[in-house]
Amino acid sequence: MEKEREALQVWKERVGQELDTVVAFWLQHSHDEEHGGFFTCLGRNGQVYDHLKYVWLQGRQVWMYCRLYRLFERFHRAELLDAAKAGGEFLLHYARVAPPGKKCAFVLTRDGRPVKVQRTIFSECFYTMAMNELWKVTGETRYQNEAVEMMDQIVHWVRVDPTGLGRPQLSGTPATEPMAVPMMLLSLVEQLGEEDEALTSKYAELGDWCAHRILQHVQRDGKAVLENISEDGKELPGCLGRHQNPGEDLEWDMKLWWPHSEAMIAFLMAFSDTGDPALLQIFNQVAEYTFSHFHDPEFGEWFGYLNREGKVALNIKGGPFKGCFHVPRCLAMCEQILEALIHRLGPTPVVSSPADPICGGSK
Amino acid sequence: MEKEREALQVWKERVGQELDTVVAFWLQHSHDEEHGGFFTCLGRNGQVYDHLKYVWLQGRQVWMYCRLYRLFERFHRAELLDAAKAGGEFLLHYARVAPPGKKCAFVLTRDGRPVKVQRTIFSECFYTMAMNELWKVTGETRYQNEAVEMMDQIVHWVRVDPTGLGRPQLSGTPATEPMAVPMMLLSLVEQLGEEDEALTSKYAELGDWCAHRILQHVQRDGKAVLENISEDGKELPGCLGRHQNPGEDLEWDMKLWWPHSEAMIAFLMAFSDTGDPALLQIFNQVAEYTFSHFHDPEFGEWFGYLNREGKVALNIKGGPFKGCFHVPRCLAMCEQILEALIHRLGPTPVVSSPADPICGGSK
Repeated sequence: MEKEREALQVWKERVGQELDTVVAFWLQHSHDEEHGGFFTCLGRNGQVYDHLKYVWLQGRQVWMYCRLYRLFERFHRAELLDAAKAGGEFLLHYARVAPPGKKCAFVLTRDGRPVKVQRTIFSECFYTMAMNELWKVTGETRYQNEAVEMMDQIVHWVRVDPTGLGRPQLSGTPATEPMAVPMMLLSLVEQLGEEDEALTSKYAELGDWCAHRILQHVQRDGKAVLENISEDGKELPGCLGRHQNPGEDLEWDMKLWWPHSEAMIAFLMAFSDTGDPALLQIFNQVAEYTFSHFHDPEFGEWFGYLNREGKVALNIKGGPFKGCFHVPRCLAMCEQILEALIHRLGPTPVVSSPADPICGGSK
Repeated sequence: MEKEREALQVWKERVGQELDTVVAFWLQHSHDEEHGGFFTCLGRNGQVYDHLKYVWLQGRQVWMYCRLYRLFERFHRAELLDAAKAGGEFLLHYARVAPPGKKCAFVLTRDGRPVKVQRTIFSECFYTMAMNELWKVTGETRYQNEAVEMMDQIVHWVRVDPTGLGRPQLSGTPATEPMAVPMMLLSLVEQLGEEDEALTSKYAELGDWCAHRILQHVQRDGKAVLENISEDGKELPGCLGRHQNPGEDLEWDMKLWWPHSEAMIAFLMAFSDTGDPALLQIFNQVAEYTFSHFHDPEFGEWFGYLNREGKVALNIKGGPFKGCFHVPRCLAMCEQILEALIHRLGPTPVVSSPADPICGGSK
C-alpha cells in the first residue's frame, strides 16, 4: 500500500511539473498578439515555421486553456483566460467559410482567411468544444449559443443530411461510417452535458446512439477495433475494412505522441476503475517510455514523431495536427486521476519513531 | 573505351533481364480477366490485397504495355496488346465520373464505379497518355479522338477556367501553381507530338508555356527546385513555399522506388548527352543501390518503400501510387539509352590473336 502510494505520489509530481513546462511553452511561443488565435507550427525551440492557423488546433487550445483555468488553481491566471478569449474571438470571426453557414475551414491564414476546407465535421466539433468551455469559464451566453447551434448543425449533418459537408455522392463509395464520427460526437455529448441537466437530457438519446455505433466497430470476436464497417455492422473488404487506429498517424512503424499520451490516460483510468496493479505497471511502462523518448529536456514540450526505434524523426513541437492539446490534456488528466487515487488511499500513516528514511520508517 | 563498352554492355543485359521479370510479374498477377483493367494493390508475392482500381495506374499500365509492344520486339506479343486494349476499354467505360463530362475519378471499384474524385488534372492526363498510345499501336482513331479531346479539356482547366475541377474558391488560398502541372502537361505535349507533325505544331506554344513555367520553379540562384511559387515567380512563405520533390513520398527520411528509378534515367541521359564519365559513375552508384535494395530476388519486381537505412518498410509491390509504370519504364528507357550508347561506340574491335580472356586480349 505504502509502496503504491509512493509510486503514485512520484508520478503525480513528475506529471504536474511536466504540465507546468508544457503550458509555459505554449504561453511563450504560440500566441498571435496581432490577430488573436494561436500559431501551432512551432519548431523545436518554439520558433514559428508557418503562420497558418489550423482550426482544429485553435479550438483545442481554447478548450485546453479554459479547462486549465477552470480546474487547476495554479492555472487560474488572466494570461490563460485572455488568450483563450482572443482565440475564441478569432474563431467566431473567421472559422466559418461563408457565414451565416456553419461549415468551418480546416486551415486559415494568419489573419483568418480560409485556405482549405475539409468535408468532415471535425473543425466544427473543436469549435463547439471551445465555445462550450468559454461559456463555462466566462458565463457569457453568446458562447453557449454558438456551441449549441453548432452542435445541432453537426448532428444534422451526421444523422439527417450530410449534403452541407460538400462530399460528392459517388456510386462506388461504400456505405460506411468511420468510428471517429460517433466517438467525436460522444465526447461532445459529454462536454456539453457536464454539470448541465438540460443538455444531458437533450443529448441522452444521441449519447446512446453514439455508444451503440462505436461498439459495432469492435470486430473479430472482440479482438480488433476496425475504423470502418458496413452499415449493418459487418467487416468490409479491402484496405478500408482492415483500417485500424486512424488519426494523425503517418507511417505504420512510427511512434507518435498522441497514442502514447492516450495510453497513459487509458491505463491510469483502468487502474483507477479496477485497482489491478498490472494496469498501474503498464501505465508506468508507457509513461517511462514517453517521458524518456518524447519529452525534450532542452526546449520543453514533446517531440511528436519518432521512428520505431524511438529516434526523433521530426523535431517540430507543433504542426497541422499537434498543438496545445494531447500533451497538456494527458498530463492534466493524469494529474487529476493520480490525485484522486492518492486521496482514496487516505491520509499518510504517521511514522511513530525517527528512522532511517532510506530504509523506510514504517515497517 | 573498351572498359566503358563493357560496363555499358553489362548494365544493358542486367537491365534487360530485370525488365523481363518485372513485365512477367504484372502479366501474371495484375490482370482482371472478369472486368478488364488492372489490379495494382499487389502484395509481395503478387497476391491482390485490394480490388480497388486507381485510374492513374490503369492509364499508366495501358501506356506501358503499348509502349513495350510498340518499341521492343520481344514484347510485341498479343498478350500485352490484348491486356492494354482491355484496360483501355475499362477506362473508356468507367473513368469519367459523369459522362459526357470529362472529369475522371481517382479510384474505381473493381467493376468500375467511382469511389473518389481528385480535384486535379492527373487522372485525365494518364487517361490521355493511355488513349494516345492505344491509337499509336492499333491505329483506331476513336482512341486518338479521346486523347485529343481530353487533352483540350485539360488545357482548358489549366489555362482558361479551373471551375470544372471542383475546387472551391477560397480567399486565403495563395495564387500558386504546383510545378507538377506544367511538368505533366509538357510530357503530354511530348507524347502527343511524337511522330505527329500536326499535333507538334498544335501544341508548340503550349510546350513553350510549360517550359517557361517549369523554369520559374528553379529558385535560390539555381540551387533549389521549389514545387510552389507565386504567380510572379517568387518564393512563397511557409511550408507551401519550401515544399520540394512532391509525389508519392511518404516521410522525408524514407527511400522510395520512383526517385531512384527516375535518377537512373536522368544520370544515364545526362551521360549520353555529355559523355562525362562522372555521370556514368553516378548512374552506376544509384543503379547498384537500387538493384541491391529495391529489387526482390524472391518474388520479382521491386519493393516501393524503404526506410533511410535501406530496410524494407512496406513489402507491397503495388498500391495506390505504385503500379506497372515507374519500374518497367525506367528499365525500358535505360535499356534503350544503353543500346544507343553501345551502338555509338561502333563495332567491338576484333581480337587479333587468341589470348587469356580474363587478362583481356586487346591490349
